[in-house]
Amino acid sequence: GLHLDLDRAPRTGQSEVVFGQGKSPEQLVLAVGGLLEAGQPALVTRLDSARGEYLAKHVPEGVYWPTAGLFTVGRPVDLSEPWPSAGQAMVIAAGASDLPVALEVLGCAMFFGLDCGLASDVGVAGLHRLLQRGESLAKARLHIVVAGMEGALPSVVAGLYGKPVIGVPTSVGYGTGLGGIAALLSMLNACAPGIAVVNIDNGYGAAAMAAKLLG
Amino acid sequence: GLHLDLDRAPRTGQSEVVFGQGKSPEQLVLAVGGLLEAGQPALVTRLDSARGEYLAKHVPEGVYWPTAGLFTVGRPVDLSEPWPSAGQAMVIAAGASDLPVALEVLGCAMFFGLDCGLASDVGVAGLHRLLQRGESLAKARLHIVVAGMEGALPSVVAGLYGKPVIGVPTSVGYGTGLGGIAALLSMLNACAPGIAVVNIDNGYGAAAMAAKLLG
Amino acid sequence: GLHLDLDRAPRTGQSEVVFGQGKSPEQLVLAVGGLLEAGQPALVTRLDSARGEYLAKHVPEGVYWPTAGLFTVGRPVDLSEPWPSAGQAMVIAAGASDLPVALEVLGCAMFFGLDCGLASDVGVAGLHRLLQRGESLAKARLHIVVAGMEGALPSVVAGLYGKPVIGVPTSVGYGTGLGGIAALLSMLNACAPGIAVVNIDNGYGAAAMAAKLLG
Amino acid sequence: GLHLDLDRAPRTGQSEVVFGQGKSPEQLVLAVGGLLEAGQPALVTRLDSARGEYLAKHVPEGVYWPTAGLFTVGRPVDLSEPWPSAGQAMVIAAGASDLPVALEVLGCAMFFGLDCGLASDVGVAGLHRLLQRGESLAKARLHIVVAGMEGALPSVVAGLYGKPVIGVPTSVGYGTGLGGIAALLSMLNACAPGIAVVNIDNGYGAAAMAAKLLG
Amino acid sequence: GLHLDLDRAPRTGQSEVVFGQGKSPEQLVLAVGGLLEAGQPALVTRLDSARGEYLAKHVPEGVYWPTAGLFTVGRPVDLSEPWPSAGQAMVIAAGASDLPVALEVLGCAMFFGLDCGLASDVGVAGLHRLLQRGESLAKARLHIVVAGMEGALPSVVAGLYGKPVIGVPTSVGYGTGLGGIAALLSMLNACAPGIAVVNIDNGYGAAAMAAKLLG
Amino acid sequence: GLHLDLDRAPRTGQSEVVFGQGKSPEQLVLAVGGLLEAGQPALVTRLDSARGEYLAKHVPEGVYWPTAGLFTVGRPVDLSEPWPSAGQAMVIAAGASDLPVALEVLGCAMFFGLDCGLASDVGVAGLHRLLQRGESLAKARLHIVVAGMEGALPSVVAGLYGKPVIGVPTSVGYGTGLGGIAALLSMLNACAPGIAVVNIDNGYGAAAMAAKLLG
Amino acid sequence: GLHLDLDRAPRTGQSEVVFGQGKSPEQLVLAVGGLLEAGQPALVTRLDSARGEYLAKHVPEGVYWPTAGLFTVGRPVDLSEPWPSAGQAMVIAAGASDLPVALEVLGCAMFFGLDCGLASDVGVAGLHRLLQRGESLAKARLHIVVAGMEGALPSVVAGLYGKPVIGVPTSVGYGTGLGGIAALLSMLNACAPGIAVVNIDNGYGAAAMAAKLLG
Amino acid sequence: GLHLDLDRAPRTGQSEVVFGQGKSPEQLVLAVGGLLEAGQPALVTRLDSARGEYLAKHVPEGVYWPTAGLFTVGRPVDLSEPWPSAGQAMVIAAGASDLPVALEVLGCAMFFGLDCGLASDVGVAGLHRLLQRGESLAKARLHIVVAGMEGALPSVVAGLYGKPVIGVPTSVGYGTGLGGIAALLSMLNACAPGIAVVNIDNGYGAAAMAAKLLG
Ligand SMILES: Nc1ncnc2c1ncn2[C@@H]1O[C@H](COP(=O)(O)O)[C@@H](O)[C@H]1O
Ligand SMILES: Nc1ncnc2c1ncn2[C@@H]1O[C@H](COP(=O)(O)O)[C@@H](O)[C@H]1O
Ligand SMILES: Nc1ncnc2c1ncn2[C@@H]1O[C@H](COP(=O)(O)O)[C@@H](O)[C@H]1O
Ligand SMILES: Nc1ncnc2c1ncn2[C@@H]1O[C@H](COP(=O)(O)O)[C@@H](O)[C@H]1O
Ligand SMILES: [Mg+2]
Ligand SMILES: [Mg+2]
Ligand SMILES: [Mg+2]
Ligand SMILES: [Mg+2]
Ligand SMILES: [Mg+2]
Ligand SMILES: [Mg+2]
Ligand SMILES: [Mg+2]
Ligand SMILES: [Mg+2]
Repeated sequence: GLHLDLDRAPRTGQSEVVFGQGKSPEQLVLAVGGLLEAGQPALVTRLDSARGEYLAKHVPEGVYWPTAGLFTVGRPVDLSEPWPSAGQAMVIAAGASDLPVALEVLGCAMFFGLDCGLASDVGVAGLHRLLQRGESLAKARLHIVVAGMEGALPSVVAGLYGKPVIGVPTSVGYGTGLGGIAALLSMLNACAPGIAVVNIDNGYGAAAMAAKLLG
Repeated sequence: GLHLDLDRAPRTGQSEVVFGQGKSPEQLVLAVGGLLEAGQPALVTRLDSARGEYLAKHVPEGVYWPTAGLFTVGRPVDLSEPWPSAGQAMVIAAGASDLPVALEVLGCAMFFGLDCGLASDVGVAGLHRLLQRGESLAKARLHIVVAGMEGALPSVVAGLYGKPVIGVPTSVGYGTGLGGIAALLSMLNACAPGIAVVNIDNGYGAAAMAAKLLG
Repeated sequence: GLHLDLDRAPRTGQSEVVFGQGKSPEQLVLAVGGLLEAGQPALVTRLDSARGEYLAKHVPEGVYWPTAGLFTVGRPVDLSEPWPSAGQAMVIAAGASDLPVALEVLGCAMFFGLDCGLASDVGVAGLHRLLQRGESLAKARLHIVVAGMEGALPSVVAGLYGKPVIGVPTSVGYGTGLGGIAALLSMLNACAPGIAVVNIDNGYGAAAMAAKLLG
Repeated sequence: GLHLDLDRAPRTGQSEVVFGQGKSPEQLVLAVGGLLEAGQPALVTRLDSARGEYLAKHVPEGVYWPTAGLFTVGRPVDLSEPWPSAGQAMVIAAGASDLPVALEVLGCAMFFGLDCGLASDVGVAGLHRLLQRGESLAKARLHIVVAGMEGALPSVVAGLYGKPVIGVPTSVGYGTGLGGIAALLSMLNACAPGIAVVNIDNGYGAAAMAAKLLG
Repeated sequence: GLHLDLDRAPRTGQSEVVFGQGKSPEQLVLAVGGLLEAGQPALVTRLDSARGEYLAKHVPEGVYWPTAGLFTVGRPVDLSEPWPSAGQAMVIAAGASDLPVALEVLGCAMFFGLDCGLASDVGVAGLHRLLQRGESLAKARLHIVVAGMEGALPSVVAGLYGKPVIGVPTSVGYGTGLGGIAALLSMLNACAPGIAVVNIDNGYGAAAMAAKLLG
Repeated sequence: GLHLDLDRAPRTGQSEVVFGQGKSPEQLVLAVGGLLEAGQPALVTRLDSARGEYLAKHVPEGVYWPTAGLFTVGRPVDLSEPWPSAGQAMVIAAGASDLPVALEVLGCAMFFGLDCGLASDVGVAGLHRLLQRGESLAKARLHIVVAGMEGALPSVVAGLYGKPVIGVPTSVGYGTGLGGIAALLSMLNACAPGIAVVNIDNGYGAAAMAAKLLG
Repeated sequence: GLHLDLDRAPRTGQSEVVFGQGKSPEQLVLAVGGLLEAGQPALVTRLDSARGEYLAKHVPEGVYWPTAGLFTVGRPVDLSEPWPSAGQAMVIAAGASDLPVALEVLGCAMFFGLDCGLASDVGVAGLHRLLQRGESLAKARLHIVVAGMEGALPSVVAGLYGKPVIGVPTSVGYGTGLGGIAALLSMLNACAPGIAVVNIDNGYGAAAMAAKLLG
Repeated sequence: GLHLDLDRAPRTGQSEVVFGQGKSPEQLVLAVGGLLEAGQPALVTRLDSARGEYLAKHVPEGVYWPTAGLFTVGRPVDLSEPWPSAGQAMVIAAGASDLPVALEVLGCAMFFGLDCGLASDVGVAGLHRLLQRGESLAKARLHIVVAGMEGALPSVVAGLYGKPVIGVPTSVGYGTGLGGIAALLSMLNACAPGIAVVNIDNGYGAAAMAAKLLG
């Protein structure tokens, strides 16, 4: 049932990435193996710990990053703390509960070779925390803002710094948060200009977009 | 078909208010007449210009305020510019398109005898405008924040000033604004504490709540 | 990944509160530790029993309240029965299944130093039960009405007593209850004046709002 | 394009009723003519004034009732004021804006030969008005409760009188009223027992159900 | 936290029923005990097997019916096969997967003393099965139609027999079934007259309505 | 701004069709002209009367069919009554208000050269009307069922005749009909096998599918 | 509670199929037994492994296919690899995560005796993979396109090959995928002609439709 | 009620843009006048023809572009045909009905000084049209894809060219198109990497983002 898009790297500059969710462990090993055999690096996303550890056991040259739900092999990815605090692209996470998605962005960015930093837990309820990170934010060429709940942070960041912003709504919240729909709608309706949005919890998509824009 | 709640003022401190939408001009004249006969002032909300002018013609002691969609009689209401810029309650409107709802708040507040000011067009896309109004905002006991589109302003106001905030989402916007649902969801999911919300475009409801809280 | 808003208490009068959902046990211990070190009390919300007990073990001076899903330390909170039956703010719970949210309100109110009572299981299907609590309801300055299913209780309470009402829709119900959306919509569309609403199951938000209003 | 269900009266006890919306004036005249030719009375629902008056002109033995949007011929229907205040079935309308739907119920009930009364403008914001109508409400065998906005009245009526209730949500309201969805959800989630619901604004459906139940 | 509505039976003819979902085992024992002490029978709905068996152990004079999710005591309820095939009210279940809800109707009907029969697995995909049950269907005074998936059966039953129909949408289905919303919408929009609807999976509500109508 | 897909006929067997909605009258004349110049027939769908008549005036060799909202030229299409009552494909319309969509199917079918008949106003509220058309229904190879409101007719037709059914939900209805969503959901969740569905009011899509299947 | 539609095969050409979801293991054994006793083959859909294995143990002449969630007996079904790569109907699966639904189509097609092939993992992100399968795709009379996430593949396939397409949206995806709703909407709104759609994940429905069309 | 964000240009590189919808003609003249007085150019979006012409009359140095709904003054904008066919950013419009939104992108891009071209009517139903524009598409650094209905074009463009894509869903469509929601969901769930999305019909937002990215 597998037909890898091995031609994607020459065509688009980024190799095929494996969507981990809904695949059996065997399919995952086959997919990663196929990429490695073709001389390509491999990135698997949205991988729970059971299948992540299975993959790490069967492809020992790779690493499974549990918080980010990523498996990487063939590229220098390192998600252990401390995380880089500055870069051409800055990931800005609203709350500490958004960290898994923020690390998905960071890990994928590293996989794509993008120079990327992280500022975490700087949401709108206490804006002074954001301002304290002002220097590295002002130096970056692109902001990737990760936020759940009301998702207001991209509006504020775009209004303050005027850089292009990729918004990543997260499913953090409850009730009318609707699994991230509230945050998504906020970002789509932002009246500050210069914001474009990816799917809820789609850290990978934001990193791929950023790498194409800055690459 | 009319049965006025003439006992509401003694029971709850605020007299019955007529919901103008969906009533015939004749029903409106009867309702206002009934309140006046009972010695009560009258407020009609959500009134388009055709029926508003009809009412003003048949109840000449009252005034129709077209931008706010209100008709008032028996209480000192004045919505002509300049509007009061300070008060115990401060209405904060995000964009100039939110003005009709902001004036519905202001007009109803005047009707209920609430000391109320207005700061308009101070949305998150240019926060410095909000900060310029800092003095009157800091002096108020309550903030009523009126915002459409992404509805992020209540989060920011609550985070900066820490006063209790009544959020009024408006139907200003388009596409995924969903007629105000996006703004409503933002406000309900705000992570800054001290925000409670009324229906979309419900300026009257916010004023009634504020008058009860501060009265 | 943590950046506590230690400046929130001076700025807004209420210290930062930790959103327990979606955080690892280690993050929770760090967050509570950070607040205590800064000489601030700590409140954690939406905490399931596994992580609540972990926290209670690692921060033994605090208490975990399982029904309310709260962890508290540094403030006199006591959620053991009997609960206070009167106060400046009255929590009114429609059904016995709404008790967890009602206790989240009560516990947070105690944490914020608000004088708060509770009337439980007094829903609209048998209104006489509400009327039996009339004296303490009439004395309170604010009503916090907690209701799932059709969420009609705030309308009725506002119509009878005329006090300002904070509505807290709960996710109690099934089918078209839509996880609390039905109750939320009821409250937002209440035709009785003087009702403002917080997120579904957001007992903390209602208590924070009440404390700001009455504090 | 017309194929009337002339066999419906013998099969089910009620003759076919013409759904007026979306039909051309010519189709309407043909449909009513077909029923009259077959010796059956005719009822057309959801008829705006342009087509209603066209029909009245071409079928002069019938009457068009503009507020209710009904055309009737061959049965004694009279919707001029005063409306009957008591009956085996009682229509209870929450607000004066719900009158068009309440009159659709009343007119259809008359068409089906059901003994039916009306109590209007007795919503939950001022419950004493409902209690003043207690005698005729207690005598009825069935309550048909018509309400828009938050739609809480059926819960309250069912809780007080314990009669079976047919709830008719109306599209009266705005914003999160969602064209009657909020009222519908309230009624479906009522915790008072003995409530069943018809479509939004479906006065005809409620009358047909009542006539079958009591006929 | 419990305040039983012991006055409900005299007021409305049906005693209070305990909503089992979201209550702790201890609350359930207290609630049932309170009803029994007041000399009233007890019915608990929406009870999973863990709490159902706990209740049966602590209130040994009662019975837990696992498929229907009911606990009953003080009234002659018997849900063991064969079920009654005829009665004043007929429960008609579309598919075999709808049986749990159909048995909730039947069990509650028995509790309320209603004469009730059941016809199961007679959905629209093979209408001849329905016609085979024609005699008992024609004799009944009321049809309670239980259906998931597309929920078309009430339309067909109402069109064929012309009796009043209470529709009970179920959550049986997947994908665009939306947990019963598709079936609910079908029933609300039925063009056959004489259908009113209760909440998704609300067998109890249908039985309570039927008992009031026929009692 | 126009780039006609003139290669579509050789590639897929059906020439490009112009989507009339949202185009200016000038764009429409250009598009039809471009197809005619290329020696292809032209079909325009979803055309209101203003633009339909403009087009008929500027392209006099074509015809505008107002009820169906179609403009056709270069193929023998005739939508004047009486319509063909039998054919390889049978269009079955539930109610007389569904006729515009049924005629869109019929007109497009004629344009594509499909042998197609029509049975109208044979909905589930009076099934005997459907059975009267049994012969032509049984002879057809495919049924195209057009229905609004509860959309139950495809289930019943598929259950009775077992032919493949293309369901066309229509926007006929009100309230919870949700502009055709209720009918769509019914059709998608049908438990009778052999039903596939097109967009709401998409008569053209059903005809194109049928022509490909039977062509 | 079971009433099998044993007359379905003569009436419609396909025997009754058991909907496995929501049935107890005992009901399943009874249903399959009933079909076999009547001399009919049996197909059970949407069967998880616990109940699938129970059924395989109690009906040993049948086979349970875990990936497809099917149980089959009495017809030659074989879902072991390699799968047929060509046929009158071609199943086209967008991603490897869509395989379970694609195999539900294939297994049901085999059960219905339809000549059916499979092309897997050929989504729009790398269209050249689809073009490599061009020969078998061009030979087929019907395409069944199985896709989750954005569900764009049916549009592309219909645009390229012009065959009739049955679209099967799957629940593969996350966030705004909404459990398959996004893919469903894509397919319903496809501007390429010749696409009709079944329920999300409804492989059985697509196979039944295809068998009727080509049978 | 106006408070222009005159500081936006120095802070973010783009001057304030006036949201035309929901403003009175007088407010619009004041807003444009205020910007011109401050020496800034002015752009007004979402302007219907009545207010657009009013503005053009009162600010004669500016131009109103009716198809795009824009008013521009102080920057060289020219939307008369022929439009530029190549540029650093390429706008790709799926259908001719999407032209108004595509021209909103183009006009705003010209206002922001972005080198921008347009390829129109090249949707997925006839992909060869897209391929004919391959050269200018391959030379661009960024693709802005404007599409309504199923919104599949961004997936295909991203898969073929691998450039970063800004998706602009449009409200073109009907029924389940849901005013652009279907297209939006497609774009958010695209499995081709490198796509970020703005609000439905938000041509302005896409141009602002592109100008920031390429400026
Ligand atoms: N207001 C209404 N709401 C719901 N159904 C109706 C209404 N008026 C008529 N109907 C039913 O709709 C069916 C279809 O109507 P028609 O389109 O006239 O063939 C009729 O047979 C009536 O039973
Ligand atoms: N299955 C059910 N569905 C809807 N309402 C119910 C159900 N079971 C009990 N109820 C009602 O819910 C009310 C509130 O229940 P409680 O939470 O027990 O106070 C009771 O008084 C019953 O009338
Ligand atoms: N996977 C499926 N999706 C939709 N319908 C199904 C499925 N499997 C079986 N069915 C149909 O559902 C009907 C009702 O099923 P049952 O609940 O078994 O009586 C059967 O007669 C089948 O036609
Ligand atoms: N078409 C548009 N869509 C989204 N935002 C816009 C649009 N046009 C202007 N804006 C933004 O909306 C903000 C608020 O507008 P205003 O109501 O004019 O104060 C402006 O500062 C712009 O950044
Ligand atoms: Mg934080
Ligand atoms: Mg502004
Ligand atoms: Mg109770
Ligand atoms: Mg009233
Ligand atoms: Mg069955
Ligand atoms: Mg008809
Ligand atoms: Mg793949
Ligand atoms: Mg085109």
